[in-house]
Amino acid sequence: MSNDPVFILTRPQMGENIGAAARAMLNFGLTGLRLVAPRDGWPNPAAVATASGAAGRVLDPARVYPDLAAAVGDCAMTFATTARPRELTKPVYTPEAAVAEARAQIAAGNKVGFIFGPERAGLENSDIAQASAIVSVPVNPEFASLNLGQAVLLIAYEWGRQTAGAAPMRLEGAVTELATGIEVEKLADHYEERLEEAGYFFPPTKAPVMRQTLRSFWARMPLTRADVQTLHGALRQLMRKR
Amino acid sequence: MSNDPVFILTRPQMGENIGAAARAMLNFGLTGLRLVAPRDGWPNPAAVATASGAAGRVLDPARVYPDLAAAVGDCAMTFATTARPRELTKPVYTPEAAVAEARAQIAAGNKVGFIFGPERAGLENSDIAQASAIVSVPVNPEFASLNLGQAVLLIAYEWGRQTAGAAPMRLEGAVTELATGIEVEKLADHYEERLEEAGYFFPPTKAPVMRQTLRSFWARMPLTRADVQTLHGALRQLMRKR
Repeated sequence: MSNDPVFILTRPQMGENIGAAARAMLNFGLTGLRLVAPRDGWPNPAAVATASGAAGRVLDPARVYPDLAAAVGDCAMTFATTARPRELTKPVYTPEAAVAEARAQIAAGNKVGFIFGPERAGLENSDIAQASAIVSVPVNPEFASLNLGQAVLLIAYEWGRQTAGAAPMRLEGAVTELATGIEVEKLADHYEERLEEAGYFFPPTKAPVMRQTLRSFWARMPLTRADVQTLHGALRQLMRKR
Repeated sequence: MSNDPVFILTRPQMGENIGAAARAMLNFGLTGLRLVAPRDGWPNPAAVATASGAAGRVLDPARVYPDLAAAVGDCAMTFATTARPRELTKPVYTPEAAVAEARAQIAAGNKVGFIFGPERAGLENSDIAQASAIVSVPVNPEFASLNLGQAVLLIAYEWGRQTAGAAPMRLEGAVTELATGIEVEKLADHYEERLEEAGYFFPPTKAPVMRQTLRSFWARMPLTRADVQTLHGALRQLMRKR
């Protein structure tokens, strides 16, 4: 369904794993698959073979994007799946809490994405910096071995479990219209450009980390459309009157 | 742990699937594995290879039984996993309800087993007849494709999810130190002063609402101490280099 969450596979390597992810999703009725720069190109015969009955429903309509930013452009909230929360300062959700939050956001009209990393290395910090939050399965700290297909399965299962739940969804307060990924990205660009001109990213050796810190900050904030407009306006005014 | 549920694989075929089941279990701290008449005998090198780090903790202590009756002999309650509930004379549980029931039984001192069928055909009716109840994952009726390892994973995940129990819904990253109210207020002051100097609060009739909008914005954002320092620094730099 168009208002279900989308699952974004970032730089997936093996076609078999893309197919397995498609099968896992369709078990719980999910069909919104996006691919970021799949290693072996697209379409991928191995993915189709593994997906089997899920090929037509999930793989065929899947969209391919050159980078993660493009893939999450229309998402107001994104969850980056990681094996273990790392250094970045983002809220960390269990699958249960993430799906509950996703359902609330979707009920408020916002698009939600779950981002999965490549098989071996998982998401890079620069990927996670673009997400609103982190979702991590609480596994045995002495033995964590979930693969890509299993991570997709568990999130899809949680979606199915909570969606099937007879309990009516509880909505609190007024519906807030969150900004989309593209809107937040443009805002981040605007601030980064002005800070660049002001010599903020100094010394050059620290500049990449400083940029990533700021990107991560913007992605993490629950910005509404109105907030984004206010922040554009404030920056323009700061730069104008001197 | 000795009072955790045991997972019983009935006539498993591929060693790889036994190994995958062991890995799935250990992710959630479960180590009680029993095997009923594994097709390729026991021990099984392919199972060990797939189990990898879970071989020593789960496969080595696994017990092998000639038939299901022997394998569940000490269990007070058993759940037979099926793709679709068949034998209608038994209660049918979702994984969530089954694990909740299992936890209650275990708390009362009873041993509980989850029974899984062979890869291709699943459990036979004669197997299901020996179980106390049925557990079935509510999947898409038009596309049900869970394999043995996935079924084990989902039950183990449910066990982990419910056992984690009192864990907070939203885990905070270890490094997330939220800013205090005073720190956020000083940040809001800093921005308001510079915006005031830049003529942002105009026209005067709208100024109070604009100030309030900004105050409300800062208060609503989940700012960390590091965010606050970054935002002070960015503003200072924007104002300095012109």
